[in-house]
Amino acid sequence: MDMTRVDCAPFEGRREKLKALLTEANIPALLVSFAANRYYLSGFELFDSQCNESVGWLVVTASGRDMLFTDPRFTDAALRLWPSDDLCIYGAGKHAAMAKFLRGRGITSLGYDPKAISVFDHEKLREHFGLIPVEGLVERLRRIKEPKEIELLHAACELNHRVMRALPDMLKPGMTEAEASWGIERMFREIGAEGMSFPSIVGAGKNAALPHAIPGETLLRDNDLVLVDTGCRLNGYCSDQTRTFWLGREPSERFQETKRLVIAAQKAGMQAMRPGAPIAGAYHAAYAVFEEAGVAEQFTHSLGHGVGLETHEGPSIGPRTEGVFLPGMVITAEPGLYDAAWGGIRWEYMVVVTEEGCVAL
Amino acid sequence: MDMTRVDCAPFEGRREKLKALLTEANIPALLVSFAANRYYLSGFELFDSQCNESVGWLVVTASGRDMLFTDPRFTDAALRLWPSDDLCIYGAGKHAAMAKFLRGRGITSLGYDPKAISVFDHEKLREHFGLIPVEGLVERLRRIKEPKEIELLHAACELNHRVMRALPDMLKPGMTEAEASWGIERMFREIGAEGMSFPSIVGAGKNAALPHAIPGETLLRDNDLVLVDTGCRLNGYCSDQTRTFWLGREPSERFQETKRLVIAAQKAGMQAMRPGAPIAGAYHAAYAVFEEAGVAEQFTHSLGHGVGLETHEGPSIGPRTEGVFLPGMVITAEPGLYDAAWGGIRWEYMVVVTEEGCVAL
Repeated sequence: MDMTRVDCAPFEGRREKLKALLTEANIPALLVSFAANRYYLSGFELFDSQCNESVGWLVVTASGRDMLFTDPRFTDAALRLWPSDDLCIYGAGKHAAMAKFLRGRGITSLGYDPKAISVFDHEKLREHFGLIPVEGLVERLRRIKEPKEIELLHAACELNHRVMRALPDMLKPGMTEAEASWGIERMFREIGAEGMSFPSIVGAGKNAALPHAIPGETLLRDNDLVLVDTGCRLNGYCSDQTRTFWLGREPSERFQETKRLVIAAQKAGMQAMRPGAPIAGAYHAAYAVFEEAGVAEQFTHSLGHGVGLETHEGPSIGPRTEGVFLPGMVITAEPGLYDAAWGGIRWEYMVVVTEEGCVAL
Repeated sequence: MDMTRVDCAPFEGRREKLKALLTEANIPALLVSFAANRYYLSGFELFDSQCNESVGWLVVTASGRDMLFTDPRFTDAALRLWPSDDLCIYGAGKHAAMAKFLRGRGITSLGYDPKAISVFDHEKLREHFGLIPVEGLVERLRRIKEPKEIELLHAACELNHRVMRALPDMLKPGMTEAEASWGIERMFREIGAEGMSFPSIVGAGKNAALPHAIPGETLLRDNDLVLVDTGCRLNGYCSDQTRTFWLGREPSERFQETKRLVIAAQKAGMQAMRPGAPIAGAYHAAYAVFEEAGVAEQFTHSLGHGVGLETHEGPSIGPRTEGVFLPGMVITAEPGLYDAAWGGIRWEYMVVVTEEGCVAL
């Protein structure tokens, strides 16, 4: 294990921004319980050990010191990035230990995100604190990526490009979807990825019509299509791309025409991704291309989503999304057309919103 | 994708048991929101796409039909194991759609687990339902594994044995912990695992003293120890084992003596794992071995935990655990001794409690 201390400056900078939001909202301290938010603000553990097993919470104050709470398994990891005075190692009585530590510093009320706290934790905490619900404060910061984050997302996406470039030679008729999926994962890891950002989707033929096909024993066939939606993690940041390949010499006319439409919709969506433009407008722009071609009912999901420390984060690019694009947002543009009797085509870029418009990573 | 219908009998049998518990507790219907519980009772999706992104909920009634709720991405997967009449596909207004569907069937109150529901979901649901908190009902069933589940856990554990047998030849001085970890994962996948049940721990030398060491750039060295804690998933079920290896010809005396103590503690713990015996007694039996040797303060965690559809499930084998061992429990027995200045040794078996006592898988 690398025992060197972590560079804490980026995390401190983000906490400074959060402190400004807390002051503005008149919240003395915020409990950060969701793993990706905790990591974003502290550098401490990007993942919980299970969804029902937190490895620690963070409390960020509006105008004082910030405190990290974890269990003894993570003492060493915590000390590499947190001052010991501000670190509370709890045992079995987590909530009581936190209360003692925080009340000892005069903190008697806590903001919390109702989506990130269980009813159980809420009941335990309200024995000790006044609780103030406040939704999505950290997520609001995370939507706008810092230049360094864009660099890291770019680097993760570059591994995707390498895998996608290798796929036409790697995908062979007769191989199962599951074999193809493992081949993709192995390549990602061998070229440096820490892991996958989500389980790869490999859909052969008609299976490409299932937006979340689990790669199974279906064989890839000659003169047929295969949809690959995959991504990795590098330095904690996620990549996410989809391409749909044709196996065999000459793509069918339907494949070529459907692919042309999907890419046209993607282009139209991306042209609507510029600072100040409504987010829903990008969805509508892509949808309009399909509508004009009379196939809009085959486009069954949103146009995309934010990507960063999580594969799915804000904003969602859908018809009901409020708000506008802002420079530094990193989002996917992934229209698709699906027909259960035939298959499907999806094409996905990761896109960063710039001062002028957007560029694909 | 395999389009054949799933064998639903095991899931139906478990719901029957749950219905009896619901009737006993006078709860007309239970909302099952936690992913592993949902899968255990329905066969539908073992994982949520992210911890903050549910792919569906299940409602089990005390004496009527049971209903599955998911979004359009999973319609196909749901229909392979659920009658369409009892399936509700929701869009953006999830809680309202659920309420309409359930109230249409006369369901006006719902049991829920306070640890498995966010404050946000609770607030949305209580607009429509009377809500009854009830903790750990499904987890109580999951503690006792069915014969078929024990078979599946045995099969997952068998892959672990194969990897552990290969490790003495695979682990080489000069290799980094991260390289060793990837080699372990690659082998698991090549011999049939679906994935890892948790990120492998590979701790070289002093790093073995960190219970949750992330494999890094530290080199494995000749005449030094390396701790490997790893497991896989097979058919959804998890394995979990730890061994500590010595690289080089002759283990040091301290290594040999520490290993002897750890294995003696494991044996003492396992002798206390028999039907009707208090769970905490197994912890105390292992602890007593260390205490007698004067090293108890180096044993810094519990003796083990249940394992099944999740790596960590009930019961925890600790000093404060209430209850007794019951046939069909599958648990780990993993004592360890750690010294930050030297390293650590942990030895972990997966154990099934039988009618007579227990056996290691």
